[in-house]
Amino acid sequence: MRVFGIDCGTEHTGWGVVEADDSGREVRLIPIAAGAIKLNKKQATPVRLQQVYAELMGLLTAYAPQVVAIEDVFFAANAKSALKLGHVRGVAMLAAAGCGLEVAEYSPLSIKSAVVGYGLAAKEQVQFMVARLLDLEKAPEPADAADALAIAICHIHTAQTVLAQGGR
Amino acid sequence: MRVFGIDCGTEHTGWGVVEADDSGREVRLIPIAAGAIKLNKKQATPVRLQQVYAELMGLLTAYAPQVVAIEDVFFAANAKSALKLGHVRGVAMLAAAGCGLEVAEYSPLSIKSAVVGYGLAAKEQVQFMVARLLDLEKAPEPADAADALAIAICHIHTAQTVLAQGGR
Repeated sequence: MRVFGIDCGTEHTGWGVVEADDSGREVRLIPIAAGAIKLNKKQATPVRLQQVYAELMGLLTAYAPQVVAIEDVFFAANAKSALKLGHVRGVAMLAAAGCGLEVAEYSPLSIKSAVVGYGLAAKEQVQFMVARLLDLEKAPEPADAADALAIAICHIHTAQTVLAQGGR
Repeated sequence: MRVFGIDCGTEHTGWGVVEADDSGREVRLIPIAAGAIKLNKKQATPVRLQQVYAELMGLLTAYAPQVVAIEDVFFAANAKSALKLGHVRGVAMLAAAGCGLEVAEYSPLSIKSAVVGYGLAAKEQVQFMVARLLDLEKAPEPADAADALAIAICHIHTAQTVLAQGGR
């Protein structure tokens, strides 16, 4: 299974691709690629959204994942920032749907629990564990890319648990 | 000038096209078309966003406006509803950008002021005035379509004022 994680943001949108190799006794996580889409704040919102959409469509086509995983957000500093994050999130989901991919959503708590084993872990702990789980010398940069990989890892862990419980 | 107004919503997204005929002494508002995109709440969000995007792209291509006008939202019941509204709004702006159109944003206060002459007007007053300004027997239904026409009218009024003030 290959998972494409997206960490939506109004300035940087991180992305990360992780493959789960379950041919052995234990599932092995293989990092495929990661990066971040940097948006120019000086540009109008529709132009920035067009950039996110075009880059995500290109990446989804290039890396051909089986599923897309994104962070579910229930809180935000205020309604305005939630609305702005929603713009990017909506476009990310549209790109996934355009590639015929399902979108799985995970709460920040689930993502941190899956990666660090502790739902209230600090950002640095998540980055450290992402590097460790993917056998990388150091955490991928920028942090948004590492966060996107964490979301992908969360999906793999969750999917595994579901399978282990008899496909429930 | 032909304006395509969009009233974004998570259940219904209204749209309305208004043409401003400035060949005479006074600008005449001509209603071209209006309607609403109804979303099935049972469907997954990415599928709903795909429907909004596809329908808006079709309408923008069919009615070939010069500009898109949408409502600017700074408040919402809560961050979750702002995020959901943001999804639709992001996809609407992407569709406009995909058709090479600029997006003008107006606050609910500006829209009501432009249509009713009073920023805190009730929804029914807006609908009544939309019908009157466009010389229609009754307000277009559903209400989302009338709201979208109000947004388009607001853009025409604002553009006129700017022109009258010497293109400022």
